[in-house]
Amino acid sequence: MNIILLSGGSGKRLWPLSNDIRSKQFIKLFRNNNGDYESMVQRVYRQITEVNPLAKVTIATSKSQVSAIHNQLGDKVSICVEPCRRDTFPAIALAATYLHDELGVGLDEAVAVCPVDPYVDNTYYKAVNKLEALVSQGTENLTLMGIEPTVPSRKYGYIIPESKDYISKVKEFKEKPDKETAKQYISQGALWNAGVFAFKLGYLVDKAHSMIDFVDYRDLYSKYETLTKISFDYAVVEKEPSIQVMRYAGEWKDVGSWNMMAEVMADKVKGNVTLDEACENVNVVNELDIPILVMGCKDMVVAASTDGILVSDKERSGQMKPYVEAISTDVHFAEKSYGTYTVIDAQPGALTIKNTMKASHQMSYHYHERKDEVWTIVSGTGKVIVDDMERAVHPGDVVTITAGCKHMIIAETDLSLIEVQVGNELTLKDKIICNR
Amino acid sequence: MNIILLSGGSGKRLWPLSNDIRSKQFIKLFRNNNGDYESMVQRVYRQITEVNPLAKVTIATSKSQVSAIHNQLGDKVSICVEPCRRDTFPAIALAATYLHDELGVGLDEAVAVCPVDPYVDNTYYKAVNKLEALVSQGTENLTLMGIEPTVPSRKYGYIIPESKDYISKVKEFKEKPDKETAKQYISQGALWNAGVFAFKLGYLVDKAHSMIDFVDYRDLYSKYETLTKISFDYAVVEKEPSIQVMRYAGEWKDVGSWNMMAEVMADKVKGNVTLDEACENVNVVNELDIPILVMGCKDMVVAASTDGILVSDKERSGQMKPYVEAISTDVHFAEKSYGTYTVIDAQPGALTIKNTMKASHQMSYHYHERKDEVWTIVSGTGKVIVDDMERAVHPGDVVTITAGCKHMIIAETDLSLIEVQVGNELTLKDKIICNR
Repeated sequence: MNIILLSGGSGKRLWPLSNDIRSKQFIKLFRNNNGDYESMVQRVYRQITEVNPLAKVTIATSKSQVSAIHNQLGDKVSICVEPCRRDTFPAIALAATYLHDELGVGLDEAVAVCPVDPYVDNTYYKAVNKLEALVSQGTENLTLMGIEPTVPSRKYGYIIPESKDYISKVKEFKEKPDKETAKQYISQGALWNAGVFAFKLGYLVDKAHSMIDFVDYRDLYSKYETLTKISFDYAVVEKEPSIQVMRYAGEWKDVGSWNMMAEVMADKVKGNVTLDEACENVNVVNELDIPILVMGCKDMVVAASTDGILVSDKERSGQMKPYVEAISTDVHFAEKSYGTYTVIDAQPGALTIKNTMKASHQMSYHYHERKDEVWTIVSGTGKVIVDDMERAVHPGDVVTITAGCKHMIIAETDLSLIEVQVGNELTLKDKIICNR
Repeated sequence: MNIILLSGGSGKRLWPLSNDIRSKQFIKLFRNNNGDYESMVQRVYRQITEVNPLAKVTIATSKSQVSAIHNQLGDKVSICVEPCRRDTFPAIALAATYLHDELGVGLDEAVAVCPVDPYVDNTYYKAVNKLEALVSQGTENLTLMGIEPTVPSRKYGYIIPESKDYISKVKEFKEKPDKETAKQYISQGALWNAGVFAFKLGYLVDKAHSMIDFVDYRDLYSKYETLTKISFDYAVVEKEPSIQVMRYAGEWKDVGSWNMMAEVMADKVKGNVTLDEACENVNVVNELDIPILVMGCKDMVVAASTDGILVSDKERSGQMKPYVEAISTDVHFAEKSYGTYTVIDAQPGALTIKNTMKASHQMSYHYHERKDEVWTIVSGTGKVIVDDMERAVHPGDVVTITAGCKHMIIAETDLSLIEVQVGNELTLKDKIICNR
C-alpha cells in the first residue's frame, strides 16, 4: 500500500503554536506508546505503520516543512516537495508522478491520499487499508472514504451515496450546507468528505497528463509554478463518474481549533504551568521557560510560545483567525534540519536567537550580506568553519562573523548557541548558501 | 514639611510584575499629567510636590530599592537606606536620626510618615499637610490620620476616637476585626489605621534614644542589624497617651491585589495586547515583546513579564500568594542604577541577559569568580574598561570577559547590550566590586 499524506500549509488556527513556518501537525501535544510527546505527523506515521508495517508513506508538502519532517520522522518517509503552493490537484499529480518516476511504483499499484491532520484511532488506517482491496478489484476508478456524521455540521462538504450500504456508488457531492440541509443529507445516508481518496497510480498519472502538458516528474516539477490552483475535488473527484465511497464510523476529529485540540491533547497542561484548584476545564500549553499561573478560570485555553500568548474562552477560540492575522507575523520559532531556532529578543537593529543543534547535525555553509553575527557556544562541542578556516568550539567560545563571511557549525554533541545578529535589515532572506 | 515615605519590601501580590527585587511601587501603570506612564512612587512624589512644592521627601527603604528610586526620581528625594529589614519602628527611628544628623532638620520641625503604596488623590496630601499645623500646635505628641471606612473591612486595624469630631483624641486601637465587630466599630466613628503618623522630630529622636542605645545616625546604622523587629504601631503609637487622630474621607485605595490594581490602573491594557469584542471587564499588562491575544474572557486579569505569566479571575487574584511562593523565585527583571536588566534565556550553564543603559550612566567596576561573559553591543555607543584597558564600543562590537577579569561599561548614548553568561554556577552573588 502506498499512502500519500498531504501535509497542508501554515496555520493560524492553533496560534501561537502554529505560525507561518510551523504547521499545526508539528506541534507535540500527543503521546506515543512510550509516553513521549509526539506531533500529529509522528502520530499518523506511527498509526499507519502499526496497522500496516509495509505501508510506504510519501509526504507531499512545501519546502518549508522539509526540515521539520526530517527532524520528526528522520528518513523513514519519502518527501515530495512542492516548489510552491498550487492547491491539491497539482500537489497530488506531482506526488503521483514522483511515486512512479522517482520511487518506481507500478501504475497498477493502489495509492491512497490522506490529509495529515485529523485525530483518529488505528481503525481509520485499517479502513484506509481496505480501500486498497477495493481499488485492486478495479470496479471503479476512484474510491473515497466518507466519515459518518456525528452532528449536522456546516463545516464539511457532504458525499451523497446512492445507497446506505457500507460501500456504495457516489450519487453526488454537496458543498458545505446550512444546518437544516445538513440534516436532510444525513437522513439520506450522506457522509462527510474528509479528503481520503484511493486509486490505481496509473489512473492519476493519466489524469495528470490529460490535464497538464508535461513529460515526467522532473518536468512537472520545473513548471509547477505555472500550474493553475485547483483542488483535487473540483478537478477530479466531482467529475469522475466511476466513483464509490466506503463508510467510516470510527473516531475522527478535525483538530482545527484550540477547542478541539483541548479535547484530544494528551495532558490538560504541558510545560511550566500551575492551575489553582478553582480552575475548571482549563487547558494550558506553555512552550516558554517562564511559569504560567492560572487562577479561577473556567472553560479556557491558554497557549504561550515565543510567537505570542493566547488566553481564550474555548468556544471563542474558533474565531481566532482575523485577530491573529492582524497581529505581527514575525516568526519567532522554527524547526530546522539541525534542531530549533528561537528568537529570544528582538529590538531595532538586533535579533537574539537561541539555536539548539542535535549531535552530528550541521547548519548549511552560508553568508549574509547585511548583518554581522556573534555566536556564543553555551553547551556542547562542535566545529566551526568561518571562511574555510576550521576550529573546534566549546562552551564559552565566541565566534564573530561579519557580513560576507562564510560560516557554518557542525555539532559533535548536542549543542546550544546564542546568536546575536546586528544590522539595519535583519531578514531571513539575507542568506546565501555556498559550496564547501 | 518633612515627609518620610516608607517604601516597603518586595511583594508577590502583583506577581509577575512585582518580584523579590521589584516592589509593586515601581511598576508603571499610572499616568502623569503629561500622559506618560508613572509608577506609584513617582505618582506619590508628584502629588506631594503638587500640593506642597516645598515638601522635603525622604524615602526610607532597603538597599535593593535604591537603584529603582534613583532611576525613577533622580536626585529629587533623600534616601535613608536600611542595612536590613527590621520592621517599621527601627526604620522610622533610623529615618528620624537621618533627618536630624544628616539633613540637619530641627528637632522642633514637624515630620509626617506615610506609606508609599496607597492610591489616593491630592486631597490626601492636603490632609497630610494639615497634620503639620496640628503637630506645630503641640497639644499632642502624636497625630494620626485615620481613613473613613467605606465597608466593614477585616483587612485593617481600627482607630477608635473619643468623639466623631474631625479631630479627636484617640481612645484605643483595635486589631483586624471580624465583619460584625467592624460594623460596631464604625458605628462608634472608628477609622482605618493606614499608617500615617505625624510628630515633632524631637519626639521621635527622644523615643528612639529611650528604646535603643545609640549615639547618632551613623552609630544606629552600624548596629541596625542587632535591633529587634517591631512595628511602629506596637512600639510607639499604641503606648502613647498623648495622641489624636484627624479624619480623612477622600479617595484612598489599598492596591494590594490585581483586583484593586485593575480598578486604578490608567489603561485597561498596557503593552502589545489585543482583546476581542467578547471580552468584558478584562485588564491586561504585557511587559513582554510578544503579543497577547485575549478572547471571550470576563472579569479577568492577565499580566506577563519575564518572570512569568498570570491569568486570573479578578476575585481569585487576591489568593495568589501561596501559588506564587511555590513557583521558582528566579528574578528575571531588575531596575539597575544604569537602566534595566532582563533575563531573556536561562538554560543549564548559561544565562542570556538584555541590559539597557541610559546615556551617561555606567555599571560598577567588578569581576566574577566563576563565570565568563560575552557582551555584544547592539545599539548606542560607549566605553568599555576591561582589566584597566579602555576602548570605545559601537553596535556589533564584542567584549569577551573571562572569570577574574575586571570590567565595566560607560554608556555615552542610550545603549543596549546582550550579555551571555557561561559557567556552572550562575548567581547574582558572584560579583566583586573593585576600585578604579
